Amino acid sequence: MKLLTYLDKSGLPRVGQLSGEDTVIPLSYPDNRKVSDLVELIASEVPLATLKTSAPALNLASVRLLAPIPRPARNIFCVGKNYTDHAREFTHSGFDAGQTDLNAVPASPIVFSKTPETVIAHGDAIWNASGVSEALDYEAELAVIIGKGGRGITQSAAMSHIWGYTIINDVTARDWQKRHQQWHLGKSFDTFGPMGPVAVTADEIEGNNLDLKCWVNGELRQSSNTRHLIFDLPTLIETISAGITLHPGDIIATGTPEGVGIGFTPPRFLKPGDLVTIEITGIGRLENRISDLLAG
Amino acid sequence: MKLLTYLDKSGLPRVGQLSGEDTVIPLSYPDNRKVSDLVELIASEVPLATLKTSAPALNLASVRLLAPIPRPARNIFCVGKNYTDHAREFTHSGFDAGQTDLNAVPASPIVFSKTPETVIAHGDAIWNASGVSEALDYEAELAVIIGKGGRGITQSAAMSHIWGYTIINDVTARDWQKRHQQWHLGKSFDTFGPMGPVAVTADEIEGNNLDLKCWVNGELRQSSNTRHLIFDLPTLIETISAGITLHPGDIIATGTPEGVGIGFTPPRFLKPGDLVTIEITGIGRLENRISDLLAG
Repeated sequence: MKLLTYLDKSGLPRVGQLSGEDTVIPLSYPDNRKVSDLVELIASEVPLATLKTSAPALNLASVRLLAPIPRPARNIFCVGKNYTDHAREFTHSGFDAGQTDLNAVPASPIVFSKTPETVIAHGDAIWNASGVSEALDYEAELAVIIGKGGRGITQSAAMSHIWGYTIINDVTARDWQKRHQQWHLGKSFDTFGPMGPVAVTADEIEGNNLDLKCWVNGELRQSSNTRHLIFDLPTLIETISAGITLHPGDIIATGTPEGVGIGFTPPRFLKPGDLVTIEITGIGRLENRISDLLAG
Repeated sequence: MKLLTYLDKSGLPRVGQLSGEDTVIPLSYPDNRKVSDLVELIASEVPLATLKTSAPALNLASVRLLAPIPRPARNIFCVGKNYTDHAREFTHSGFDAGQTDLNAVPASPIVFSKTPETVIAHGDAIWNASGVSEALDYEAELAVIIGKGGRGITQSAAMSHIWGYTIINDVTARDWQKRHQQWHLGKSFDTFGPMGPVAVTADEIEGNNLDLKCWVNGELRQSSNTRHLIFDLPTLIETISAGITLHPGDIIATGTPEGVGIGFTPPRFLKPGDLVTIEITGIGRLENRISDLLAG
């Protein structure tokens, strides 16, 4: 099932099902309460098959989309250098502080975080960080949404803890990422977490084998498949949950493949007006434009 | 004013004022609503002088303390290697992945994050991460609590954005910190964020000049003063807020001085039963014991 979050006529968040290409069906709980929060729905463990559909159905183009999880309850877990070709392009770019072995791929997952407030929806503007960063870059990523939480989740149990998937653009200020060594600041500028357009339940797609593409202004920049992840989804979940209790609705952005802006010589940074489009098979297309003004 | 959060007779969180050494005075808003959440109080901008005190006063020893902010709304901003002597002991220890210049001190603030769920109260047990980490370490730190939020806060305005201060023990799994390069995982194990016992308003103490000490089992390990911070509080706030909008109740742990366990040869890691005590002038004493069982 494809689920999305949008603003209803009263301006309140509502969760709906995407049916076909462009029909949004508002959802309610079996007790007729409106589903307004995807994380609450996930945590409730109410079977999706028991949800009620409400009339009238809406046209996707007519609703104001939010990210599927508009404000995660804590920072997004993000994985760095998790595709071999990207690990090498990043190291060779000189933007990876402290990395001296230019061909090294990580021996263990590299995990950092993005603040919840980075999250914006499909169609929202990405701030170009005018006056703050001169080196904005895109990173197309498959994001895992955790269902059942837990600590010490084993690889063999890990896939059963995945509720579903979405797309994240792990927008990065490369100058900040390098200068501050730890990546948290350069990854967490306001609007640096475009997410969506929908969340897809785990039964619909095979997370470890999804085509992933990214275009800037229509030019294909990234094209890979999640089967090329250095650390696959079970490994990531086992690693993160070893010491940290995962909660329903936690998000893990799994890393980006080769083809980011710093992979080019000279680097091709994003500038105002640029349109970044990310597509993952079975999820959809996430599209956001760089803007020189911060919306809101 | 010293404020603390505790569980009232009904088992609900309540904010009280610490009067003298051991008297807790329950607080209410001018409209008589109980103050139950320190961040809500901060965000409300209700002047503390207009709060009402409720009877009866309680003895500190009789209440179940929570951390002043028991569950921050997003990950805690943490600063690494922010005292010169500690930056050097850390680099020399070999636990700082990728650092080759052994005497380097950071040229820019190093910022990473800890999950909100790491937070535990004064007196709560720190999990020894049995089976997960063999290299637990303490880090005594002054933590800043943001009052008025904002983005692009200048150094000259920064101090006016500080609502107050508390103590944080930035507990760290050194093996994870090194192995995973980015520090997020090794800093975010469950219970790795002891905080408290109280929060002190900014008018009471001078954040840039506070004595800070840490003992393990009564043995003095760390002794410094926040005036030795490489990047002082205004610099940290200007840096973090350049691209990230700060919110009321955001927490910045400002870094730890020399004397952590990996500063010794061989390293002196924490083991079950060890008691870590941190004292900062004008705030109080935060004390937590390492336990081989995870409470709760």
